[in-house]
Amino acid sequence: MKTATSITAREAGSDTGRLEAFSDGVIAIAITLLVLDLHVPAMSGHVGAGEMWRALRAQWPSYDAFVISFAVIGIMWANHHNLFRIISRTDHYLILLNLALLFCIAVIPFPTSLLSEFLGRSGEATATQVYTGWFAITAFTFNRLWWYASSRAHLLDPAIDGPAIAGVSRRYMLGLVGYVAAFLLSFVNAVASLVLIVLLGLMFVLPSSSGGVTTMRRQDEEE
Amino acid sequence: MKTATSITAREAGSDTGRLEAFSDGVIAIAITLLVLDLHVPAMSGHVGAGEMWRALRAQWPSYDAFVISFAVIGIMWANHHNLFRIISRTDHYLILLNLALLFCIAVIPFPTSLLSEFLGRSGEATATQVYTGWFAITAFTFNRLWWYASSRAHLLDPAIDGPAIAGVSRRYMLGLVGYVAAFLLSFVNAVASLVLIVLLGLMFVLPSSSGGVTTMRRQDEEE
Amino acid sequence: MKTATSITAREAGSDTGRLEAFSDGVIAIAITLLVLDLHVPAMSGHVGAGEMWRALRAQWPSYDAFVISFAVIGIMWANHHNLFRIISRTDHYLILLNLALLFCIAVIPFPTSLLSEFLGRSGEATATQVYTGWFAITAFTFNRLWWYASSRAHLLDPAIDGPAIAGVSRRYMLGLVGYVAAFLLSFVNAVASLVLIVLLGLMFVLPSSSGGVTTMRRQDEEE
Amino acid sequence: MKTATSITAREAGSDTGRLEAFSDGVIAIAITLLVLDLHVPAMSGHVGAGEMWRALRAQWPSYDAFVISFAVIGIMWANHHNLFRIISRTDHYLILLNLALLFCIAVIPFPTSLLSEFLGRSGEATATQVYTGWFAITAFTFNRLWWYASSRAHLLDPAIDGPAIAGVSRRYMLGLVGYVAAFLLSFVNAVASLVLIVLLGLMFVLPSSSGGVTTMRRQDEEE
Repeated sequence: MKTATSITAREAGSDTGRLEAFSDGVIAIAITLLVLDLHVPAMSGHVGAGEMWRALRAQWPSYDAFVISFAVIGIMWANHHNLFRIISRTDHYLILLNLALLFCIAVIPFPTSLLSEFLGRSGEATATQVYTGWFAITAFTFNRLWWYASSRAHLLDPAIDGPAIAGVSRRYMLGLVGYVAAFLLSFVNAVASLVLIVLLGLMFVLPSSSGGVTTMRRQDEEE
Repeated sequence: MKTATSITAREAGSDTGRLEAFSDGVIAIAITLLVLDLHVPAMSGHVGAGEMWRALRAQWPSYDAFVISFAVIGIMWANHHNLFRIISRTDHYLILLNLALLFCIAVIPFPTSLLSEFLGRSGEATATQVYTGWFAITAFTFNRLWWYASSRAHLLDPAIDGPAIAGVSRRYMLGLVGYVAAFLLSFVNAVASLVLIVLLGLMFVLPSSSGGVTTMRRQDEEE
Repeated sequence: MKTATSITAREAGSDTGRLEAFSDGVIAIAITLLVLDLHVPAMSGHVGAGEMWRALRAQWPSYDAFVISFAVIGIMWANHHNLFRIISRTDHYLILLNLALLFCIAVIPFPTSLLSEFLGRSGEATATQVYTGWFAITAFTFNRLWWYASSRAHLLDPAIDGPAIAGVSRRYMLGLVGYVAAFLLSFVNAVASLVLIVLLGLMFVLPSSSGGVTTMRRQDEEE
Repeated sequence: MKTATSITAREAGSDTGRLEAFSDGVIAIAITLLVLDLHVPAMSGHVGAGEMWRALRAQWPSYDAFVISFAVIGIMWANHHNLFRIISRTDHYLILLNLALLFCIAVIPFPTSLLSEFLGRSGEATATQVYTGWFAITAFTFNRLWWYASSRAHLLDPAIDGPAIAGVSRRYMLGLVGYVAAFLLSFVNAVASLVLIVLLGLMFVLPSSSGGVTTMRRQDEEE
């Protein structure tokens, strides 16, 4: 029997289950809270159909911000989901890095609110910088988590091969580069920056010829 | 050992577990956030019992919108729950189609707010069109997900037989037709359109003689 | 191979897992949304410590309503948790009855808001009637679910014995009687009615000599 | 076959699964609701970039309160997660003590709101007392739960050894002492008190030489 002291260095079980469940919870809440930013237009007295449609259309910045943020968080969830099919064990720092990632995701409704308030108005440039900048930080945190896990073989499912891991690393790095580019572009042109975020999202939708993360699988399923 | 590139075309494991957990999270949050639209009547000074009941009753549009939306989302959850007893594997597009469905469901609190604000007032017709129209879009997205999965045998539990699958398809299509009919009816009569939504909900409550989705089961349980 | 039609009458698998997960989600959200009713006192200019404490203390109705509702929902979760250790299979109506129960629980933040707004003011009586009345309806829905399941042996874990089931029925009926009594009492004295709700909660805290629901267990664990 | 009465004293199964799932839900929601306190600055007319950044910077109390509360709740989740790797069975009082802990955590958004409203203003001292005081109460509730479980061998995973349990007790007690110290310090200096809370958080981040809770593991994994 070893003492508590002597077992410090060794890692803690293979249960990523609760970490995934908690992450699912936080991501699901963050993505659903976005709807609280869609406001019913305040209209009193008689409201004609044309007037109502105009009022609803005038809220396009809210819809745009909602759709983009929903897509970004949704894709992050899909990536997180795939990541933890590769990562089969947790340790202290993985839990901390995952909390840092959840922090970034939980904050997203705030820059989304900011964008939906200022898009199409004079504060648009600054709001877009904050919005895309936060996505770049989130993408960095995502990569940080992956760098930590992928360089520690004992945290990974042994059935995943090296090239598959390198493929994930490449794709995540590409995502990070894309978000940083969108952030830099936001200082030049806010709308172009948001279009780039949308294109990054669409890139995820298309199947990747170099091995999409969602097709990552255990070697032992190959035959 | 195959490389990351060569495994692209093959699908990713049979774990629908986390997809279901995340979906449960989003649907549970969307259905529970609806309550934020029930507002305490603003009343100052002395408040008599009669006055209070009158103020609470005056909020009937909120209650109606809440009950209908809760029922619709609840039924969607029950259907989603049953769907993923038939679907036993996920792939990239199934995850995307499921995200699209969760998007539709996560938005529902917004048209619900709109309806509870305008029901019984002059903007009622437009609000009902948006409300029922969104349900029609959501029903379409649901069918889209099912069409994709049901036409790919490797995503389905092999124990489910063909007629059972055809039964589910028929019932979902009926739901879609019903919601589209409610949307079209909303241009003629808003209240009739909402009544049709309620009837569609009640139809789900009654057991279906042609094999309700909730009674769908694996062939291997039959003996 | 049987057709979809012929399997209608038979029930659907033993997976109560996702029903429990969804219920956990809705109950967890409803219980946590209660905090949105605790408002930061609006104070401008210089704020002294005494003034601040007075402002915080003045919000006692919010705290009271929060604590009572949290306790009631928490106890309901504990009971729901225990119930689904006895119920091991779901069917169409069980899912519907469970949705009805979740509806009741998801609504609770609204009467809680109402109570925290009117407690200690002239509308107190009416607010308490709505509040306790809703709890009575919720308790009825809970019993309704249990009556349905407990009278259908194929839905229950076969290892649970008859007297244990009778014990659960007795205790739930007692809870229902208590909430209905609190509702009736609210027409006489609002505060006494709320005190009764608190006592009902404390009753749950004390271990029951006639077999607490949380000590319900499978016969096969007995030896 | 034993009767319901005779089985009262014995404990209820080893399923901590749903208790963990419900706790994950409540903690995930509480941590994510914190974002609702980050408000978009209200600005009308032309908004210059400098003006916008100034308005965003002026909200530093919200950001500080958000970050500290997120870290505290996140660490509590990590500790809760580790605790239920040691605790393998639940009983009636454990469920109640866990509900009490969830109550404390679910309330945290309220003192966080209070702090973000008054930090840097005249009410700062009182707000910090409430904030740190609530953390002290929460830490006490956490210890209370652990004292109860750790003194009941039948609730614990038999594979966990005594020194490991003593190590957890020591560390939790240290956390409690730290939060109480922060609370007391808040009467002397609000900012110093918050800095102490941050340091307590960082202490968790550093690996503990005396056996971090996250490295706690089952004896049977040691060889």
